[in-house]
Amino acid sequence: MEGLASLDFFEVLRSRRSIRKFKPDAIPGELVERLLEAGRSAPTAGNIQPWRFIVVDDPSTLGMIRKVSPGYFGGAPLAIIVCSDRDRSHELGGVIARDYLSIVDCAMAAGYILLAAQALGLGGCCIRSFSAPALKEILEIPGGVEPELMLAIGWPDEQPVKPPKLELDEITYHNVYGEKWRNSFE
Amino acid sequence: MEGLASLDFFEVLRSRRSIRKFKPDAIPGELVERLLEAGRSAPTAGNIQPWRFIVVDDPSTLGMIRKVSPGYFGGAPLAIIVCSDRDRSHELGGVIARDYLSIVDCAMAAGYILLAAQALGLGGCCIRSFSAPALKEILEIPGGVEPELMLAIGWPDEQPVKPPKLELDEITYHNVYGEKWRNSFE
Repeated sequence: MEGLASLDFFEVLRSRRSIRKFKPDAIPGELVERLLEAGRSAPTAGNIQPWRFIVVDDPSTLGMIRKVSPGYFGGAPLAIIVCSDRDRSHELGGVIARDYLSIVDCAMAAGYILLAAQALGLGGCCIRSFSAPALKEILEIPGGVEPELMLAIGWPDEQPVKPPKLELDEITYHNVYGEKWRNSFE
Repeated sequence: MEGLASLDFFEVLRSRRSIRKFKPDAIPGELVERLLEAGRSAPTAGNIQPWRFIVVDDPSTLGMIRKVSPGYFGGAPLAIIVCSDRDRSHELGGVIARDYLSIVDCAMAAGYILLAAQALGLGGCCIRSFSAPALKEILEIPGGVEPELMLAIGWPDEQPVKPPKLELDEITYHNVYGEKWRNSFE
């Protein structure tokens, strides 16, 4: 990965935005691998690692996905479908692993992939507005495995402004719910 | 935050481990704020921002939490309970936001907080093995708000080895499930 500047962690965190408009240029395999490694490095309950990643770059497959996903924004040249092997989760961790922790693990992996995309100069957007049954058919995802989240990834062709955010003192409590964590925030 | 080395994003990603053994030392408020800001910067479906963070550093409250949480490892001086305002999610995004996306959003926020902890020299562990009703009572969490994940945070008092991980070629597919993304991984 020569030529890539070393990026400060908090700068990556601060500067990440959801990107929905992409240049058509393809993404080198080496960068895709770094995204996948980022996903694989996420925490996972009981080390179950339920995640399965489907890298989609075939234009015809991307076209089919777009049709069953109203939330699939822009002409991203790459999609990573983050699936969970829920059967494996169930076997290794019981019902809570199958029905809850598999979602948590896949969300963390997706979040890490989006941060890594930002660090690599790429952009991405997390999408859930898709038809899971249609996606399973298109991608031949077996029973027992569920598509949890879809990441549209590409070279950004927009610079979105930061959306309005709740302030820290609106969402943070101290020892009991409702008690402000700090009396004053800067 | 003077004196903190600027940390390379991928180094933070690579070096993060779940930490379950902590020194007793308290965590300065400035660092707690950076953790919370990391959580607040996570992606959130439809910008709903369902997350609510309860910072727990009161020893007596921590003791009560420990009793209802077999997964609360070590003597962490700080817990951050990541809750979702599911009523708000429902109002703004319907059933899928309440029952699914609120979990996803809270998991991503928790994942970002754990990465930020690593960048700050802290360590943490994500915990779900708690009694949600008991936790709601202890922390006075109202109906409509759910404790999703608990983060034990502190100064690491262990250097855990990397747990065994599935290789990338065991979890990655190309365009269809079951088709290897690459014929050879290094």
